[in-house]
Amino acid sequence: MSESYLLSDEQFISRLRQIGENHYHDKHPYHIAMHEGKLSPAQLRAWIANRFYYQKNIPIKDAIILSKLPSREDRREWIQRIIDHDGRANGEGGIEAWIRLGEAADIPRDEMLDERHVLPAVRFAVDAYVNFCRLEPWPIAVASSLTELFAPTLVSKRIGVFEQLYPWIRPEGLAYFQNRLHQAPRDADHGLSIVLRECRDRSDQEQAISALRFKCNVLWALLDALSLAYPDGDNLR
Amino acid sequence: MSESYLLSDEQFISRLRQIGENHYHDKHPYHIAMHEGKLSPAQLRAWIANRFYYQKNIPIKDAIILSKLPSREDRREWIQRIIDHDGRANGEGGIEAWIRLGEAADIPRDEMLDERHVLPAVRFAVDAYVNFCRLEPWPIAVASSLTELFAPTLVSKRIGVFEQLYPWIRPEGLAYFQNRLHQAPRDADHGLSIVLRECRDRSDQEQAISALRFKCNVLWALLDALSLAYPDGDNLR
Repeated sequence: MSESYLLSDEQFISRLRQIGENHYHDKHPYHIAMHEGKLSPAQLRAWIANRFYYQKNIPIKDAIILSKLPSREDRREWIQRIIDHDGRANGEGGIEAWIRLGEAADIPRDEMLDERHVLPAVRFAVDAYVNFCRLEPWPIAVASSLTELFAPTLVSKRIGVFEQLYPWIRPEGLAYFQNRLHQAPRDADHGLSIVLRECRDRSDQEQAISALRFKCNVLWALLDALSLAYPDGDNLR
Repeated sequence: MSESYLLSDEQFISRLRQIGENHYHDKHPYHIAMHEGKLSPAQLRAWIANRFYYQKNIPIKDAIILSKLPSREDRREWIQRIIDHDGRANGEGGIEAWIRLGEAADIPRDEMLDERHVLPAVRFAVDAYVNFCRLEPWPIAVASSLTELFAPTLVSKRIGVFEQLYPWIRPEGLAYFQNRLHQAPRDADHGLSIVLRECRDRSDQEQAISALRFKCNVLWALLDALSLAYPDGDNLR
């Protein structure tokens, strides 16, 4: 009975990290091409405009998770994610920073906001993620956020990639990524501590691992949709 | 066709205020007795311990509404309600302040937290409120919060009532009410501005009015349950 014993924290974390090693979206051909400087401006703009649909749904899914967290202590930490994305005032927050990334890549603000570039499959994948967080038990919803474990390494690379390989993107557009360098590790630490604390039997642990796999599929599907729609790089404007 | 024309903002607000005048819980016999100094210690403790179940669900219902608000601007204001109740650190926030109200009335903290005194009908009413906010359109959920319009007048009276008529409650327990004196008007202003902005036809307006009536029923049901369980004033410890 291979699934009968509880994984130690070390084994559990190692299984979660394996998911990242095998399935995180940095392995997707579209993402590889992005980090090799091979995306055309149109392909990169399409990534920015479609990924914005994911970004704008982050505070929504985080508020859903917030509404399910039973303890004030966990809510006090979790709420910071929403503040990070929405900001405390006009001009602040991760959503605004992503809009400015779009502007730095010459995508007008209103084209980001009206979602005209968002592909149906991107919408389905992101909506599936939000609904997963709505419908699954909250520790499992939290587990699906653990792609944050893998994000800082990737994001720190991405800043260099954008600066060096896509110099036509104005550098003030990179603030989103710079902010995530300190936000993501804090989020990952809290998320992981919840998952380790709440997954008290092997079945919980396997569900958490599957949730992380699911989340990797969401990010992967986003890039699949882009690959299909932008094979040659000039479908966006 | 009496429901065919749009109410002016003035008419709409007047209809909302009428709900308060006719149905807000300050008209309930248990509440009247409270403010006349006629509740026994056991009856007042029962009110504090049962009302705590309402208090602890406030940030839950506010996170649910937060997850449904489409604009960052509204979310940035709404999130403050959650911070007010949960606090930013241990020892802070409205939930903690209510626990301390209990302690000031000699209800041990663990008896508040384990919900041993919470009556089934109180639970049903509060859970109905949370589910209303979950299931109704978000402008209608926001409308149900507009009892905040009537709260400051009542709460400022209540501080004097507790100080003068229930001197056995230690005064440090009244911090919750003191904080609400400035929080509730701010919340009511924002909630009302959302409701006025979003209710664009008469049917929306009538739904909002019904939502406020529903919320008054929730608060009323809480006091009905207490009246029935604590008719003589010594069932709690």
